[in-house]
Amino acid sequence: MAPKSQALQTNMDVDYVISYRFAKKDKSVAISKFEELVQALASVGFNTEVRNGDLQSVLLFVRVASDEHLFGEVYRSRVRDWIHGVRAAAPPKETREALEAEPLYEAERLRIIYQLITNPVDEGGAGITPGEGEWENVESIFALHDLAYNKDWIKKWTTSYFLKTEDLDDIRNRLGEKIAFYFAFTQSYFTFLIFPAVFGASAWLFLGHFSPIYGIVSAVWCTIFTEWWKHQEVDLGVRWGVRGVSRIETKKRDFKHEKQITDPVTGETVLIFPSTKRLQRQLLQIPFALTAAVLLGALIATCFSIEVFISEVYSGPFKSVLVFLPTGIATTVMPILSSILTNFATRLTKYENYQTDGAYEAALTQKIFVLNFITSYLPIFLTAFVYVPFGNIIVPYLDVFNLTVKPFADDKKQIQAPQAGFTINPDRLRKQVIYFTVTAQIVNLGMELVVPYLKRRVFSRYRQMKEDRAVKRSGTPPPPSTNRSATPSPPSPNDPPEDAAFLNRVREEAELEVYDVTADLREMVVQFGYLSLFSVVWPLTPLSFLINDWVELRADAIKICVEMQRPTPCRADTIGPWLDSLSFLTWLGSLTTSALVYLFSNDGLGPDGHPSNITGWALLLSVMLSEHLFILLRWGVRIAISKLDSPGLQKERRERFLVRKQYFEESLSQVGRLPKMADLGEKITRESLEEDARRASLKASTPEDRFWSRQKGWRETVAVAKGLIEKAAVEGSSEGKKEL
Amino acid sequence: MAPKSQALQTNMDVDYVISYRFAKKDKSVAISKFEELVQALASVGFNTEVRNGDLQSVLLFVRVASDEHLFGEVYRSRVRDWIHGVRAAAPPKETREALEAEPLYEAERLRIIYQLITNPVDEGGAGITPGEGEWENVESIFALHDLAYNKDWIKKWTTSYFLKTEDLDDIRNRLGEKIAFYFAFTQSYFTFLIFPAVFGASAWLFLGHFSPIYGIVSAVWCTIFTEWWKHQEVDLGVRWGVRGVSRIETKKRDFKHEKQITDPVTGETVLIFPSTKRLQRQLLQIPFALTAAVLLGALIATCFSIEVFISEVYSGPFKSVLVFLPTGIATTVMPILSSILTNFATRLTKYENYQTDGAYEAALTQKIFVLNFITSYLPIFLTAFVYVPFGNIIVPYLDVFNLTVKPFADDKKQIQAPQAGFTINPDRLRKQVIYFTVTAQIVNLGMELVVPYLKRRVFSRYRQMKEDRAVKRSGTPPPPSTNRSATPSPPSPNDPPEDAAFLNRVREEAELEVYDVTADLREMVVQFGYLSLFSVVWPLTPLSFLINDWVELRADAIKICVEMQRPTPCRADTIGPWLDSLSFLTWLGSLTTSALVYLFSNDGLGPDGHPSNITGWALLLSVMLSEHLFILLRWGVRIAISKLDSPGLQKERRERFLVRKQYFEESLSQVGRLPKMADLGEKITRESLEEDARRASLKASTPEDRFWSRQKGWRETVAVAKGLIEKAAVEGSSEGKKEL
Repeated sequence: MAPKSQALQTNMDVDYVISYRFAKKDKSVAISKFEELVQALASVGFNTEVRNGDLQSVLLFVRVASDEHLFGEVYRSRVRDWIHGVRAAAPPKETREALEAEPLYEAERLRIIYQLITNPVDEGGAGITPGEGEWENVESIFALHDLAYNKDWIKKWTTSYFLKTEDLDDIRNRLGEKIAFYFAFTQSYFTFLIFPAVFGASAWLFLGHFSPIYGIVSAVWCTIFTEWWKHQEVDLGVRWGVRGVSRIETKKRDFKHEKQITDPVTGETVLIFPSTKRLQRQLLQIPFALTAAVLLGALIATCFSIEVFISEVYSGPFKSVLVFLPTGIATTVMPILSSILTNFATRLTKYENYQTDGAYEAALTQKIFVLNFITSYLPIFLTAFVYVPFGNIIVPYLDVFNLTVKPFADDKKQIQAPQAGFTINPDRLRKQVIYFTVTAQIVNLGMELVVPYLKRRVFSRYRQMKEDRAVKRSGTPPPPSTNRSATPSPPSPNDPPEDAAFLNRVREEAELEVYDVTADLREMVVQFGYLSLFSVVWPLTPLSFLINDWVELRADAIKICVEMQRPTPCRADTIGPWLDSLSFLTWLGSLTTSALVYLFSNDGLGPDGHPSNITGWALLLSVMLSEHLFILLRWGVRIAISKLDSPGLQKERRERFLVRKQYFEESLSQVGRLPKMADLGEKITRESLEEDARRASLKASTPEDRFWSRQKGWRETVAVAKGLIEKAAVEGSSEGKKEL
Repeated sequence: MAPKSQALQTNMDVDYVISYRFAKKDKSVAISKFEELVQALASVGFNTEVRNGDLQSVLLFVRVASDEHLFGEVYRSRVRDWIHGVRAAAPPKETREALEAEPLYEAERLRIIYQLITNPVDEGGAGITPGEGEWENVESIFALHDLAYNKDWIKKWTTSYFLKTEDLDDIRNRLGEKIAFYFAFTQSYFTFLIFPAVFGASAWLFLGHFSPIYGIVSAVWCTIFTEWWKHQEVDLGVRWGVRGVSRIETKKRDFKHEKQITDPVTGETVLIFPSTKRLQRQLLQIPFALTAAVLLGALIATCFSIEVFISEVYSGPFKSVLVFLPTGIATTVMPILSSILTNFATRLTKYENYQTDGAYEAALTQKIFVLNFITSYLPIFLTAFVYVPFGNIIVPYLDVFNLTVKPFADDKKQIQAPQAGFTINPDRLRKQVIYFTVTAQIVNLGMELVVPYLKRRVFSRYRQMKEDRAVKRSGTPPPPSTNRSATPSPPSPNDPPEDAAFLNRVREEAELEVYDVTADLREMVVQFGYLSLFSVVWPLTPLSFLINDWVELRADAIKICVEMQRPTPCRADTIGPWLDSLSFLTWLGSLTTSALVYLFSNDGLGPDGHPSNITGWALLLSVMLSEHLFILLRWGVRIAISKLDSPGLQKERRERFLVRKQYFEESLSQVGRLPKMADLGEKITRESLEEDARRASLKASTPEDRFWSRQKGWRETVAVAKGLIEKAAVEGSSEGKKEL
């Protein structure tokens, strides 16, 4: 085997690589910090090796020293799971036994090692926090790609139409549950898209646009999908043994407390940040959302107005060029504005000072969703609900642009009098929806794959140049350090030849970006939004998404393998706060779809063929009706889906049943049933009666004792009752006879 | 102490009384069944005594034979609770110890004994099912009132303005959690009513009717109350140790299965009724609800039309009498129709064949709520949303009544031409709301207390007469039975004189009705509905309810003590399906309140002073706006309330914390921390290096081994890194200098 390909196959048993950057640090400080780092790692049981990184960084290779160390951590983690209700039963106390019963999968191993590196010292970790606080020169901690697996993965996915649950299991075993949940969600969504794609295509052929039938089917489908996915999450959570992990709260490291109190419950010291104060800070979200809406809205409205003006009012010179002006503005200013706002949202969320990672993430997701909602859907909302109904009123005001354009117009006639010439272009809405659901999706997909690649190429060339210059300047190759045979061979002169290819690969991976699964998830949720909100405009939308998502799933796999560092496995039992966004979009879809159908049936001319016939109350009534039907439908779907059984739920039931049975048997084994009473009071003899009488007279008899001593044993009770019943029955029957 | 008052004080240690009626039975069958009954009870550890009941029944007194029997059952019950998550920790295995740590309260004792009597034989009970199947002549099983406690209870409640949580604890200890939850709910509701009562009175004085401000305040208050009660339920559930009991499903006895399958999970045989078939049966609810709505609606609409006609159109003879006609029809036909429909609803629910008691009760409650909704609110809905807006159109059609009335009218002029003379009477709505929120409430309260009393009196007099006749007919007093001294003293000639008063009391209690807490709960929920739906019509509504509920709470206590058999304790952790009704009414209130405010501001004349100015879109818009504001508000209130801490939640946290701590310590005590690595690789000596080299050459060295053998121990890593950093830092700084 050639050394090169071997270097690609082996990861040298490395668990994690820590990239330590010292560029900005004083030399001695950097060294002492590095010493602390290595010592901290050694103290929790890691082997370490250091190698050259790029110009101003070293790479620290980390490996768990012994299996015993790791197994102890695994056991601890499983016990914690059990206590938090993630596992039904406690793991067996014998560690080896536990691991044999339930082998460690790779993602679990990597996750536990990562926790061992990053957990605070008092929780038994090394307390390394990359890029934060005292560890700010720990640039990143990443595991190495498993190239053989990656190759297989890509090959398998690109050659199969559908992904099976086993494929998702594979992802979970390699990359952890959080990423597996993303792929599972996208795959479910993809599968669910088949029906509306087919139905949409038929609707497009036979029913035309804005078909109420398509609208209803689409709304029902969106509801079913959302509710079904909730069910599926539970199922997958059980399948992957992570159901309930989101309840295990990890504390945020940069949480700032205002006071310390002693918990009345646990007696522990608890750090408190008053929730009223947090609420005050959270209220800043309202001005933030308004500002974002105004800024982005203004930008979108401006571009939109310019576009409408140029394409429909203006007919002066440069029209063919000017048409691209709004797109130009949008594509340059929008991303900048977006990233500024996202940045601001992150800072705002940090300022809100959440105590747990979960709360922080939920709050951030919420803000990001608002921003995405505005940038993604506002243009279409403007067209549908402002331009078309009120276009005749608003467009004349676009005259202001005429003033700007006038200097360029030689001939006055080139500018139409907008009042006269303008009519609403009902096709604009459809064109816009097609743009967002086809063009933008393709562009997006391209950007995801191409941009990081280009970025990496440019950056690596720049660094190469810089390094070359540095080498040239210093004149001589650096002196060989201890333990190393100096070799002049590229890429790094200090590498031992047999490791060179491997180290080179690691250096490349160190420069890759960190994969953020929420960005991909967001993309899917936004896409779902187009479907639920606007697909009634253009029923081919689901078909377009179906094709797009097939590619997307594979592209994401390639992205993870090629463009990104190997993601650190992370557990999750849900797609998290995006689920709420999904529900919100489904609900909003019931409003927009009915409004669109009402407004645009007959191709934008209103229900009776004239836009003027659109009446407010009918619009509101159809929207209200649709919303309440939707709520009713969702309730029905929820109930129906809650009745579904699934392998995951069965597994959970089985586990719980076994645990209960075991507990019950353990607890009750000691309490044997007491002797039955049926045998008592068997015989009423003269002796027993006399004995009773004697005992009764001996005792200081209370009314209670006397009451209960009249009939001894159940046979006496029966005998007495017999007498009573016979007597009464005689009376009753005699009475009956007499009354006849 | 006089024997009479003593008889009132003691319950003779009786746990339960079983009333065994044999009237319809053949004598010998009745005796053999009775024998089976006593034997079954004896076999699970009960002492029994039999006494005369009324003419055709005997009373079987039942007492647990020994504490050991009972304690075993208590332990079993607590273990079951623990396994279902109701208790945080398993009860101590030593039974005595367990009972000392957590003493048995009376309701728990009675509940467990009742379960022992009624549970199926294979679950360790005696399997007695009163009134059902083979035990159909077991008329009732009831515990005896604790008269001393009842007296104290009534005295305490009637002399205090507010009930404290301790008072509710007392109820829970005596009557069980289900009834305690009813009182807790009513008490919370009563307390919450104070604010709207005060605010409503001020609104009535200063803001007039249909005040939007009052409407908003009322809607907010209803939302806060509903959400707060959910929080309170959890708190009380933890306080009373019943949180989660609704998860313990008890199987319905009369569930009919269609097939048996072997559960793939537990391996047990499971009885299955296909849920598709149940769904089909459930769909019958729709025609049922429609029929009920049509029948009740027709009745209400007829009465309403007659009333409108007579009071506002008709002016012929007998007007003063005829005015009462609709009330007469309503009060006679409505209860009959209602009870027929309720009966039908019960049969429909039984037909739906639910597997658990919980599901059955939820389904029944839902139907009962629909019926109550129609009978309680439809009249007001008709007035508000049909009579007032469309009165001018509809009332002329009431002419049909003229044809009926004509024969009685001597003078044609007595009948006004409805078209000319009729104007809408906007006061009618207010009058109707006042009727339902004051008059009907008082009538209801009276009925609850007086009717059962009268019924009992009449019935007991009738029976007395019958018994007298029977005695007269038979001529001689019945012969004395064994163990009994014959005494001719009334009321029953066979009683021993010292037990006579006690037995007499028991016979009276045997004839009382069984208390049904859901009926009282329903009454409160319906009352809450008036508040949330219509109180904007008459802002004094909450004040009226405040007074009514103060009395209601006490009246219910008296009712339980005097009019009803002592209720069998039952556990619950919620007010059950009524909670959903509460949420539904709050939501609907947001719609009706806004609609009423819009329609009737300016005293029924619409927003601009003319009824004709009411526009559909404005009405719909205000309703929609109000609904969505409500949903937003509810979301906010939910979040705010979820942050509240409470003694109950603290208690739960403490328990869970202690259990976790204990488990964690138990599990991890065996896994000691492994030795730290920091001490390894302390010295790099020539010997150690040589040793390493020797070992490396001996081993068949893999690339991995060679990679990891370059640096031994963390100190070597640091040393190497030092070299790397120093070199790079020099390069970096030299570069920096040159570039300056």
